[in-house]
Amino acid sequence: MESDSEFIVVGGGVAGLSVAIELLDHGHDLIVVDPDPGGGTSYVAAGMLAPASEVNYSEVLMGKLLIEAAQYWDDFVKVLESYTSLDCGYERRATLLSATEHGDFDELMRLQSFHKELGIESHLMGRSEVLDLEPTLSPKVIGGLYTPKDYQVDNRVVLGRMIEIVEGHARIVRARVKRVVRTAQGRYQLRLDNLDVVEGERVVLCNPMISPEEVLSGLLDEDLARAVATRPVRGEIIRLRDTQKIGPSVCVRSIRHGRWNYIVPRTSGEVVVGATQEEVPLMNNSLPKAGGVFDLLYDAIYSVPSLREMEIVELSSGYRPGTYDNYPNVGELLPNLYIHSGHYRHGFLLAPYTASLLVQAIGRRSNANFSVRLQRFTEILDPYRRLQDGR
Amino acid sequence: MESDSEFIVVGGGVAGLSVAIELLDHGHDLIVVDPDPGGGTSYVAAGMLAPASEVNYSEVLMGKLLIEAAQYWDDFVKVLESYTSLDCGYERRATLLSATEHGDFDELMRLQSFHKELGIESHLMGRSEVLDLEPTLSPKVIGGLYTPKDYQVDNRVVLGRMIEIVEGHARIVRARVKRVVRTAQGRYQLRLDNLDVVEGERVVLCNPMISPEEVLSGLLDEDLARAVATRPVRGEIIRLRDTQKIGPSVCVRSIRHGRWNYIVPRTSGEVVVGATQEEVPLMNNSLPKAGGVFDLLYDAIYSVPSLREMEIVELSSGYRPGTYDNYPNVGELLPNLYIHSGHYRHGFLLAPYTASLLVQAIGRRSNANFSVRLQRFTEILDPYRRLQDGR
Repeated sequence: MESDSEFIVVGGGVAGLSVAIELLDHGHDLIVVDPDPGGGTSYVAAGMLAPASEVNYSEVLMGKLLIEAAQYWDDFVKVLESYTSLDCGYERRATLLSATEHGDFDELMRLQSFHKELGIESHLMGRSEVLDLEPTLSPKVIGGLYTPKDYQVDNRVVLGRMIEIVEGHARIVRARVKRVVRTAQGRYQLRLDNLDVVEGERVVLCNPMISPEEVLSGLLDEDLARAVATRPVRGEIIRLRDTQKIGPSVCVRSIRHGRWNYIVPRTSGEVVVGATQEEVPLMNNSLPKAGGVFDLLYDAIYSVPSLREMEIVELSSGYRPGTYDNYPNVGELLPNLYIHSGHYRHGFLLAPYTASLLVQAIGRRSNANFSVRLQRFTEILDPYRRLQDGR
Repeated sequence: MESDSEFIVVGGGVAGLSVAIELLDHGHDLIVVDPDPGGGTSYVAAGMLAPASEVNYSEVLMGKLLIEAAQYWDDFVKVLESYTSLDCGYERRATLLSATEHGDFDELMRLQSFHKELGIESHLMGRSEVLDLEPTLSPKVIGGLYTPKDYQVDNRVVLGRMIEIVEGHARIVRARVKRVVRTAQGRYQLRLDNLDVVEGERVVLCNPMISPEEVLSGLLDEDLARAVATRPVRGEIIRLRDTQKIGPSVCVRSIRHGRWNYIVPRTSGEVVVGATQEEVPLMNNSLPKAGGVFDLLYDAIYSVPSLREMEIVELSSGYRPGTYDNYPNVGELLPNLYIHSGHYRHGFLLAPYTASLLVQAIGRRSNANFSVRLQRFTEILDPYRRLQDGR
């Protein structure tokens, strides 16, 4: 079977589906190609939209990108809601960072100074204030940092909505891309593992598991291929069920001896506990390891003891696509062939925003013949330059 | 549909299948009735055949019953092997009880004196001897008690074999018994939830989840019904996969602050870690709780640190059928209607042996018109009397 479309989006996780939604919303014609749309790492993720909690000290510009991306979520949900009347899983539930040791509380104080520098709202709290706010915390807590704008999205709910919208207005081909070939007319042909071929004018690579170097073999400059390579950063995550309604009402991120843990309660009664981080080779269908699950339960139960009584619904593991500098790969690799992946720990937070930036840039180009290249070498999408310039 | 058979065995867990095998082996005609043969608690169990590790101080006679039952396993496997050439999952792997604190080592010493009293072989070992025997133990170990005759059976393998044998020589009806009725001819009719009826001369109730009081409503004396009632004792259990072959080579049962934990390695690479014990109401399809899984991982990793690196294949929970005095219910409830259940923590260890005792007793009765009644009131099957009398 041969299919034809203006855009071919390779990847049906949060990165690919965000691009697909933005393309749809700008009136483009597209096909998404993914063997298991909504599966993979996006399915495993916790869906935190938490710039205040997730920012790293040294990464001021990344901090600003995270803030902008978090603000964009309100707009993105409006886009989704223009296509569906169903709930999209966006939860404006505040986050509380909690500490049980003085060294860890110092860390929260340092984090707050950084928040001030970045213009992020956060409030330091003493023990009784923290326990008033969240009585399910262990009395061992000594203080916390309240970040009222660190929200969440139920990743599985929003992935479901995005898939419904894309399938309602475009097409998802359930197959894996084996090879991308450029035709004599400068169009792209994608050879799929089910022997089908899809052809299009423009391609957006959004699946970090598909190596650009491999599928674009012979087309891509070696340095560029190396620059956009991602490494898998494994994470284990636990899903609990709070049938007795004994869990926290805010999202709790605890730090203990410098190690972070998160507990994300959802309206559905699901409570997500995560996440380990391990730089290991990618293994297919890999199951969570006993040590990782143990560490997660240790930290989570230490911070919110009532978690003991919740049922374990699911243990899973996924691979965050890490880039060499933690910034996502967003830009043009070859004429009309774009990359939008490598969002690392921030897939749900960043992807809708970077997708909107990419689609806008592509739009400007087709109007103004503007050159969009790999983010690190472009003025449009390079977050360093863009943000340094105050744009 | 109506079926007819000499024996109807209600329950296809280890208790029912053991009775079915013993009946087959004695030339009887039978039907097993179970909605999910090989499922339930038998499927979840670890399959330890460990009289030395599982005996309780106060229960001398139970200790003797456990020893006899463990010895019977050699015979039982021979019976199975007379029907199948496939491996039955019986593993003659020794067990090591290990302690990391002095109070816990004292407990092992007391246990050894009890072993001497019962005639069970066991050897106290110091730290270096224990680490020589099992180098994967944490160096925190201070000593152990080696019980070379505490073996295991891969519960799922042996259940599979038993089902194959029963299906090859008799029949398993996949349904649940709703009601047992006595006909005018003194036979039994079992009304099933699929609206079928099976009729037979003799019935053996082997499913503790089916309350005799309920299914025998109107037939059973109230005191007798109360005497054979079981209570559910919930247990959580973890199955790991040791792909790197870094686990222990003996079965490790560790005690820490008086709390026991077991790690059962299998030839297949599976490593079973268990088990919590909780007296809670029975819930259908209940998932393991975070606190139970945490405690199991805590104790197991503390005793064998390499478990951290193993993958978690399965978390499950089951309900041990506890009786008021920990002895199984084995005997005759009504003329030609027997009970064989309530094996509590010792299902795999005890069931083949008690099944053989029951089937022998039934055989003697039909030859000699011998009365077989509920174990607690009979000379044949009451372990108290039988063992006190030295037979």
